[in-house]
Amino acid sequence: MYNLLNDLSIVEVSSFVASPTAGLYCAQLGAEVIRVDHKAGGLDYNRYMLTGEGRSLSWENLNRAKKSLALDLQSGEGRELLVALAASVGQCITNLPEKSFLSHAAMQARRADMVSLRVMGWHDGRQAMDFTVNAAVGYPLMGGPEDWDPVTAPPVNQVLPAWDFITGAYGAFAMLAALRHRDRTGEGSEVRLPLGDVAIGTMANAGLMAEVLYRGGDRERLGNAIWGAFGRDFRSRDGVRFMVAALTPKQWGGLVKAFGVEAGIAALEVEYGVRFADGDTPRFTHRSDLFALFQHAAEHADYAELESRMTAQGCTFERYRTAFEAANDRALVADNPLFGPAPANPSGFDYPATRSFANLPEREAGDPAPAPFLGQHSEEVLAEKLGLSSGAIGKLVDAGTVALSDKE
Amino acid sequence: MYNLLNDLSIVEVSSFVASPTAGLYCAQLGAEVIRVDHKAGGLDYNRYMLTGEGRSLSWENLNRAKKSLALDLQSGEGRELLVALAASVGQCITNLPEKSFLSHAAMQARRADMVSLRVMGWHDGRQAMDFTVNAAVGYPLMGGPEDWDPVTAPPVNQVLPAWDFITGAYGAFAMLAALRHRDRTGEGSEVRLPLGDVAIGTMANAGLMAEVLYRGGDRERLGNAIWGAFGRDFRSRDGVRFMVAALTPKQWGGLVKAFGVEAGIAALEVEYGVRFADGDTPRFTHRSDLFALFQHAAEHADYAELESRMTAQGCTFERYRTAFEAANDRALVADNPLFGPAPANPSGFDYPATRSFANLPEREAGDPAPAPFLGQHSEEVLAEKLGLSSGAIGKLVDAGTVALSDKE
Repeated sequence: MYNLLNDLSIVEVSSFVASPTAGLYCAQLGAEVIRVDHKAGGLDYNRYMLTGEGRSLSWENLNRAKKSLALDLQSGEGRELLVALAASVGQCITNLPEKSFLSHAAMQARRADMVSLRVMGWHDGRQAMDFTVNAAVGYPLMGGPEDWDPVTAPPVNQVLPAWDFITGAYGAFAMLAALRHRDRTGEGSEVRLPLGDVAIGTMANAGLMAEVLYRGGDRERLGNAIWGAFGRDFRSRDGVRFMVAALTPKQWGGLVKAFGVEAGIAALEVEYGVRFADGDTPRFTHRSDLFALFQHAAEHADYAELESRMTAQGCTFERYRTAFEAANDRALVADNPLFGPAPANPSGFDYPATRSFANLPEREAGDPAPAPFLGQHSEEVLAEKLGLSSGAIGKLVDAGTVALSDKE
Repeated sequence: MYNLLNDLSIVEVSSFVASPTAGLYCAQLGAEVIRVDHKAGGLDYNRYMLTGEGRSLSWENLNRAKKSLALDLQSGEGRELLVALAASVGQCITNLPEKSFLSHAAMQARRADMVSLRVMGWHDGRQAMDFTVNAAVGYPLMGGPEDWDPVTAPPVNQVLPAWDFITGAYGAFAMLAALRHRDRTGEGSEVRLPLGDVAIGTMANAGLMAEVLYRGGDRERLGNAIWGAFGRDFRSRDGVRFMVAALTPKQWGGLVKAFGVEAGIAALEVEYGVRFADGDTPRFTHRSDLFALFQHAAEHADYAELESRMTAQGCTFERYRTAFEAANDRALVADNPLFGPAPANPSGFDYPATRSFANLPEREAGDPAPAPFLGQHSEEVLAEKLGLSSGAIGKLVDAGTVALSDKE
């Protein structure tokens, strides 16, 4: 953990992926992030995959480096404590509905300059999750093999919950923007971030909305090819599948040399009266001929040889790996400073743990921290943030309003 | 544009998607973002899709609300001006290589507290792009129909360049974190953000790395089903495909009622000795039986009826739309306050334009701004930020070091 945000405390009341991720990113840059959950665990506490002992590997990765306060959030007392804590700390990340007890107005009533980030479904309050907003904005009907019949082709969901992760990162950004504004003006902010708007808005920002409106219809199915540029998966003689991309003149020149297809390229250039080095447009327009030429070359060499040639030419390429292969890949994980030693995870299972995606060469990175046990920091947080005495905390524990660590 | 960041100026030297997106998000929250390009346009200036007049619809969406300074970046004079400008402004977003003229050290030499964000390929300096890092970390080999033979199934690239968009949002966040640190300590920061680390790190944060290491192998192919929970696409009697998800007890109960499958659920509960309302685990474990039950029910109703029943039960669902359908969907676009009126786009083509994903109910949202013409703000920026006289700027233009608007 870098100490960029070590003056910042944040209360997080979250479930699932987007909202916990916003807190995770802040924690990994040094913020004190206090995740507050219902004492039996929130909706995501038992999210697949569980270890044999019932610990969620999903939860313990999305909540790394946070503190945990466990309250009875079905009781008025527990809810009251949470609102008081959020107001005391001054900034809160949540995906609870705006019409819940943790509304911005409720926090603002106790603290005029409150900053809250609320991750929502659709902007109008309708529920949504990653896979449903994805269905709505068009990407699944663009995926899958190029030779599928466009009329009968099924949608292909992306396995990565991309909208959740974009929303989490954007949420962390928008909250820091609101905090920066408060530092300068003294004004708080309510920041609402609908997952659905991240999806349809990204589709627009990517130029896809303008494109389909300009052409008056949908884009053709491209399979694994990159839209608007030269790139696709190829297969070597020994059956290894790999992805290559050439977006710049240098990348293109290197790829032609690595595949040894200079003569074929020259012939196609004569045939079509174009120069493929000129840019994306001729390469994308004639992609079908180019793909055939490159695939033919790939079939005549084993991957090790192709890899060596592409490396020598500085090409942009990557072998497809399964997730298990990736997790065991030294260059990606064991030798990558993004990962640190396994901390004491709640599950007891040891595996590489992430630092922040960003690295700061001039600063100390520190080691990754584990997720907390549920309620592990209940006493500490209530004492430090709300000034409760140990006697008062003991009474709240006895009354069932506060729970302590679920380690045992 | 909300005015959260209106005290902030940023120099952006970018191409493609991730790095321009970081600047876009800042501009949409009110920052002055000065995109500096080579005078003929950067590597992404003619990125597909182009209008008939040759304007890139990709570029004009990813660079909305920014200013443009066009310099001869192949000349020493142009490069010198850019380094001076970045140091004068104090913060810079770029994806130029660290070993380029725009190194952090070069900017820091002129300004000790410089903050720079550098979007990279892999952490070790190797080139990468969205589709190659995606190939490396495992997702494409998890995608596609469930019934594909796992041994011969091809990779399925996601059409959305998700890693680019996560990196852009995270980069904007990390830069604001570094600026916050400078506000408090006076210290600058070099922030490096490798696209590859965002990919393998997200795979880890999602719990997928822990999962495959824990099980000692890869996850089974799931088709369009949601990992670890209840959710999949179904098809109505009239052939409409839609995605449903039930992660909470309330969502599950509503879905069972909407599909009218209470009896079938009860029978399965007896057969397997489980209660599906208990959580994700029984629903995911027995998903194959549940999917068959729900699909059978879907086949006996038209979509309009299913939609009405799911809406009444507050279910989380969405009909699959093509991108063209989504762009023309009133609820998603025309009636969504995320979008504002078409500004004067460089292309001259009018279409809905995004505001920031985040909305702040208490503040004025303002109207979306257009992308600039290349070089449109060259004179303004050089005069305001570097104090150059109009005579000095005229000489730079005559010498070809500075270019003015390419509007005509």
